[in-house]
Amino acid sequence: MNLIENLNWRHAVKAYNPNKKVSQENIDKIVEAARLAPSSSGLQPFQVLVVTNQDIKEKLVEGALNPECMRDCSHVIVFAAWDKYTEERIDTVYDFTTDERGLPRGRFSSYTDKLKELYLNQSADENFAHIARQTYIALGLALAQAAELKVDTTPAEGFSNTVVDKVLDLDKLGLKSVSLMYVGYADDENNWMASMKKVRTPKEDFIIEYK
Amino acid sequence: MNLIENLNWRHAVKAYNPNKKVSQENIDKIVEAARLAPSSSGLQPFQVLVVTNQDIKEKLVEGALNPECMRDCSHVIVFAAWDKYTEERIDTVYDFTTDERGLPRGRFSSYTDKLKELYLNQSADENFAHIARQTYIALGLALAQAAELKVDTTPAEGFSNTVVDKVLDLDKLGLKSVSLMYVGYADDENNWMASMKKVRTPKEDFIIEYK
Repeated sequence: MNLIENLNWRHAVKAYNPNKKVSQENIDKIVEAARLAPSSSGLQPFQVLVVTNQDIKEKLVEGALNPECMRDCSHVIVFAAWDKYTEERIDTVYDFTTDERGLPRGRFSSYTDKLKELYLNQSADENFAHIARQTYIALGLALAQAAELKVDTTPAEGFSNTVVDKVLDLDKLGLKSVSLMYVGYADDENNWMASMKKVRTPKEDFIIEYK
Repeated sequence: MNLIENLNWRHAVKAYNPNKKVSQENIDKIVEAARLAPSSSGLQPFQVLVVTNQDIKEKLVEGALNPECMRDCSHVIVFAAWDKYTEERIDTVYDFTTDERGLPRGRFSSYTDKLKELYLNQSADENFAHIARQTYIALGLALAQAAELKVDTTPAEGFSNTVVDKVLDLDKLGLKSVSLMYVGYADDENNWMASMKKVRTPKEDFIIEYK
C-alpha cells in the first residue's frame, strides 16, 4: 500500500490488547523512520526512548490522559528533545557529519557560526520551541511507518511532562519529553475510534492556490 | 519502494531545474498526505498555500535563505498555522466532525470544553507554539509523499515570516507562516547535496531502551 492508503488506514487507537506485542523487527523500522526524519540544519535535536518495561509504564501512567493505552500498549515511544542548543552540541553533529562525508572538520563552519550566533542569542523558550517542532516531523514519519506495517499507534501529548522526565531521568540526559507514541495492536472490542469515519478539513478549506 | 527506502532516497535539494514542473496529480498527492496528517485533538490548525505564480515567488524571495530554490522550484508549499485557538474554531471543527460521523453536535462537548479551558487560559505564545508543532507532522508526511513519487523537495524554515505573511496576506486569513517546502526536480549540475552521504545520529546514540 502507498502512503496515502496507509494514512487513511491509521487512526488514533483508544484501547490496546495487552496480550499482543509488536515484534522487535517492526519497532526497529518505526524508530528507523524517526531517525531518518529531516530536521532543521540537520541537527536532529532529539532522541527516542522505547519503553516496554511494565513497571516503568505503570509509573508513567500518572498524569496520562489515556492511562489504559499506557498500560496496555506493547511499546511506548517517547520523543525527547534537547533541552537547549549549545555550541558543543552543534559542533558534535557537524564534526560527525564531516567525518562521515570524508570532509575536513570545519567545512561548514561559516554555516555553523551563523547557527550559533542565532541560537545562542535567542531565549531558552524560543530555542526550545524550535527544537520541539523538529520532533513532530519524526513523530509523523514513525506513525506512517507503523501504518505501513499495520501496527496500531496513538500519538499523544496528553501526559505529564514532569512525570515522564522524572521517571526516565531525562534531565540527566539533557532532554525534555515532547510527545509520546503508544504502539501495539488494538483491542477491537474497546477501541471505539475504529468505527468512526476519519474526518479531515475538506480540501477546499485546506488548500489555497496562487497560480 | 517502502517508506524507509523513500526516506533514504530523499535529501534537501539545493538547486532546482526551473524548466521541470511537477504535475498537478503529484502535487495533489503531496498535499493530500499533509491533509491526512494527524494533529492534536484533530483540530488541524493549519492550511497549506501552494504557490506557482512566478511574480509571487519573486516577492517571496526577499529574506529567503535559498533564493534560487524559491525562484527555480516548481511549487512552493507554505505551511501556515492558525494565529490562535478560538472557541469558534474549535466548535467549527467538532461540529463538522460530528456531522460527518452522523453524531449529534455536542457529542464531544465534555472534551471540547476541556480544550477551550486549556487553550483560552494559556498565553498567545504558548498556544502558537503548540499550533506550530502540529504543522511539522504534515510537513514530514508531505516530504515522504513527494519522495514516494520521486519528486524533489527542500523543507525550509529559512525565509522571512514577515515577507511571506504580508505577500500572501495571511493576517486576513488568521494564519501565520511556519515552514515552507520547495517542490520540483533538482538541477543535477548545481545540487551539491546529491553527492553527499546522508548522515543521521547513529542508532546507538538515538535510541534508549527501557526493557
